[in-house]
Amino acid sequence: MFEQWQLRLEALKANRFFELFVVAVIILSALLVGVHTYSIEPRYIHLLAAFDVLVTLFFLVEISIRFLAEKQKKNFFKNGWNLFDTLIVAISLIPVTNSEVAVLGRLIRIFRVLRMVSIIPELRILLNSLVKALPQLGYVLLLMFIIFYIYAAIGATLFAHINPTLWGDIVISLLTLFRIMTFEDWTDVMYETMAVYPISWIYYLTFIFFTAFAFLNMVIGIVVNVMEEENAKARAAEHAGEPTIVDLHGEILELKQMLAKLEDQKR
Amino acid sequence: MFEQWQLRLEALKANRFFELFVVAVIILSALLVGVHTYSIEPRYIHLLAAFDVLVTLFFLVEISIRFLAEKQKKNFFKNGWNLFDTLIVAISLIPVTNSEVAVLGRLIRIFRVLRMVSIIPELRILLNSLVKALPQLGYVLLLMFIIFYIYAAIGATLFAHINPTLWGDIVISLLTLFRIMTFEDWTDVMYETMAVYPISWIYYLTFIFFTAFAFLNMVIGIVVNVMEEENAKARAAEHAGEPTIVDLHGEILELKQMLAKLEDQKR
Amino acid sequence: MFEQWQLRLEALKANRFFELFVVAVIILSALLVGVHTYSIEPRYIHLLAAFDVLVTLFFLVEISIRFLAEKQKKNFFKNGWNLFDTLIVAISLIPVTNSEVAVLGRLIRIFRVLRMVSIIPELRILLNSLVKALPQLGYVLLLMFIIFYIYAAIGATLFAHINPTLWGDIVISLLTLFRIMTFEDWTDVMYETMAVYPISWIYYLTFIFFTAFAFLNMVIGIVVNVMEEENAKARAAEHAGEPTIVDLHGEILELKQMLAKLEDQKR
Amino acid sequence: MFEQWQLRLEALKANRFFELFVVAVIILSALLVGVHTYSIEPRYIHLLAAFDVLVTLFFLVEISIRFLAEKQKKNFFKNGWNLFDTLIVAISLIPVTNSEVAVLGRLIRIFRVLRMVSIIPELRILLNSLVKALPQLGYVLLLMFIIFYIYAAIGATLFAHINPTLWGDIVISLLTLFRIMTFEDWTDVMYETMAVYPISWIYYLTFIFFTAFAFLNMVIGIVVNVMEEENAKARAAEHAGEPTIVDLHGEILELKQMLAKLEDQKR
Repeated sequence: MFEQWQLRLEALKANRFFELFVVAVIILSALLVGVHTYSIEPRYIHLLAAFDVLVTLFFLVEISIRFLAEKQKKNFFKNGWNLFDTLIVAISLIPVTNSEVAVLGRLIRIFRVLRMVSIIPELRILLNSLVKALPQLGYVLLLMFIIFYIYAAIGATLFAHINPTLWGDIVISLLTLFRIMTFEDWTDVMYETMAVYPISWIYYLTFIFFTAFAFLNMVIGIVVNVMEEENAKARAAEHAGEPTIVDLHGEILELKQMLAKLEDQKR
Repeated sequence: MFEQWQLRLEALKANRFFELFVVAVIILSALLVGVHTYSIEPRYIHLLAAFDVLVTLFFLVEISIRFLAEKQKKNFFKNGWNLFDTLIVAISLIPVTNSEVAVLGRLIRIFRVLRMVSIIPELRILLNSLVKALPQLGYVLLLMFIIFYIYAAIGATLFAHINPTLWGDIVISLLTLFRIMTFEDWTDVMYETMAVYPISWIYYLTFIFFTAFAFLNMVIGIVVNVMEEENAKARAAEHAGEPTIVDLHGEILELKQMLAKLEDQKR
Repeated sequence: MFEQWQLRLEALKANRFFELFVVAVIILSALLVGVHTYSIEPRYIHLLAAFDVLVTLFFLVEISIRFLAEKQKKNFFKNGWNLFDTLIVAISLIPVTNSEVAVLGRLIRIFRVLRMVSIIPELRILLNSLVKALPQLGYVLLLMFIIFYIYAAIGATLFAHINPTLWGDIVISLLTLFRIMTFEDWTDVMYETMAVYPISWIYYLTFIFFTAFAFLNMVIGIVVNVMEEENAKARAAEHAGEPTIVDLHGEILELKQMLAKLEDQKR
Repeated sequence: MFEQWQLRLEALKANRFFELFVVAVIILSALLVGVHTYSIEPRYIHLLAAFDVLVTLFFLVEISIRFLAEKQKKNFFKNGWNLFDTLIVAISLIPVTNSEVAVLGRLIRIFRVLRMVSIIPELRILLNSLVKALPQLGYVLLLMFIIFYIYAAIGATLFAHINPTLWGDIVISLLTLFRIMTFEDWTDVMYETMAVYPISWIYYLTFIFFTAFAFLNMVIGIVVNVMEEENAKARAAEHAGEPTIVDLHGEILELKQMLAKLEDQKR
């Protein structure tokens, strides 16, 4: 009897309309989050709270269906996305009566929008490919951080007395350098220190060159990487099952053996 | 008799000089639109109005020629560009005497400049290829919107009391985040919230990283896509009609059969 | 006797040290231009003037050598770079005694720095390749201009009464839109018009999307183009002289004929 | 006896844990540099100084080990990274008692963070590849500098009287142009000169076009270059040891000779 139920739940889980309904509920929960950022008339607050409870309950039911539909219960928690969904739903269940943590409760509800990523396969694939690209960029990011750290240390040592708000200590300096990298009012920062050290423009220009160059390298790294994978896939798909030059070589060698045999027979 | 006329119109439509003349009239209509943005001396206003009527009439005549030159009248409206042209001309015909909707009338006339795209084949091809690239980017745009929405909800929840002009509700927050993505005075926004929440720089830096990364992915997506299509085209063009490795394989197999037959005959 | 001179001049022109000396004089002339932007003590002014005369004379001599070294005098003026050099030198010869046109004289001398491009072959090749890429981008630039023009016309029609300095007429609006495309204080412009038309952010966001998309397309256009040329070159260089699949096919067909002949002989 | 020591030191140098320990000490030295940018309580200053001495001594010991572990002492100094490490350590040894040069002492200690690059092989490879890409970009950088120089000379000649802070002489003008290239408040600069010369927007727009175009070309130059190297490597790796079309051609020619021989025997 239980197995019959499991099969029914599995069929429900795979149902196209059920999936669309789940997406619709996630969009509704996203809209609820959005509505909360407006000042709401008191009489509607209860309505919103009711909706919120309904969405939470639906998510609870949906995750239960997904859990019960799984034959091997262990596999359910091996999937990172399932863990993520369960966590989000579990946290939503904690009642937020205390008004002080009400903001926290609303912040947690925001992350329910991320369930959109876990439910739509295309977004999941996209995110996976982004995460996969990260480690290959690790060393470029490390190199960039070293450049940032050295410049931040120099900046905090030399410019701290000019403007402590921008160069007070090494952490503030790192933030200021990030701002300079985005070109956001960087000349204001430069003109201020040039009033004391007229040649400090060298500091800014070399920093911009180094970070731009490292960033460029990072971008190219990703492009080349993605390109190569795509090319490899394309080649594999295009010539799948087709004979290769290696096959041709084998065939020709067989031909040669046959001819050699023919010659031998002749003698 | 009618068919003779149709052939004449078709010849006229295909005439190079007629096409150039149409382009010239479109440029004239664009200049008329431009001239209207200057304050014009009263005595020239009538001249401009006359020109405007002439351009409108010419467009009416031209679209009629294109319609009459078409053998199958149904096909005319299957072409999206023809529909666009007819719509633009039809709206221009509505007389704008009421001074209140005069601005609206002038706005509609501006879109006649878009007829440049429908008349020049190269621009039409370019725009088609741009539109074709859009759906493939759909999921990246959706992912980017999810990132924007989550950050906007967080921003509107936490920062609304600091600066309602920037973080008042979720729509205003989305606009503020777009501004941050373009690096436009983003540090002003950040320093303001850092005065209340000193660690709010994490919010801005992670947002910039996520959107920059997603944007990067989008760009690379287009590049890889365009490249692949170009490569496929190039390969197809280069080796069109040439024998492939598969053909060689077939030939070699035939050779083997012939040799095997030879050997059989020998015995 | 004249031919002997010509050969000597040709040898001089091709001489490596002579070329380096010309480059050195161009750098000197560039430095002279730079020095003039500082306030100079009166006693040095004569020295600078003398240097300027010397540089001008040297350029005159050098261009004469290049002209006399040419066997076919006609070919000299067929080369665009020679024409450019002659023009620059000729204009420098015009005496600038009148103090009113002194600024003009100095501006013309600035362009002598461009002779660096005409004398160094690598720079000439680089510039040629840049110029070659331009026409292929022509239609994208045209499309971009149409987008700019339509938005400028809309902006000048709707926003002129809000801020005539930014949206006064269509030319000023074009400049303002270029500023928005570079993200330079674009939110200031937007917030100003949003005070009157709250939904005018649609105007700015769509404009940014369209131009960014068109620009992206342009960049990708160049990349794909350059790539393809490089690939074509690489393939041609790599397999030059090597047998192709077509050659193999021919050889195998010959093999088949030989075998067929063998079989025929047998019968 | 000495050789035995050398082998032991060589084993120590290659030891994975020793390498990790060196990295840890470098990170510690980086943190020390960072801590110095905060105002430190007097009682901790001695602790920091002690740590600093320890780090310096450790670096001295480590570089000595690396030197003694080398069989050919000459080769040690042929490696640029060894020279760099030795220099950094040697400068750190100079005692900084004078309070006036204390800042200089601290600045030198900052560069010890760069030892991270010399100790981690992946970063070394990354930096080498960046440095290798530079000369190929040399001519584009030269072309860009020529554009900058010409525009700076024009700017300093025409705009110096409008705002000497931005256009006073050619060096200041170069800095202002770099600022314009990063789009940092460039319209403020433009509007100021447009008040005097209304058509000076041509100066700014052409400059932005030229530099953007040259920069674009530079980026594409690197991408194409990196791509080609990667492709060449990929192709070489993929088909290593596999027969090529040239090999097939050879085999087929041998087949033909065998068949010809067979035919000869027949007659």
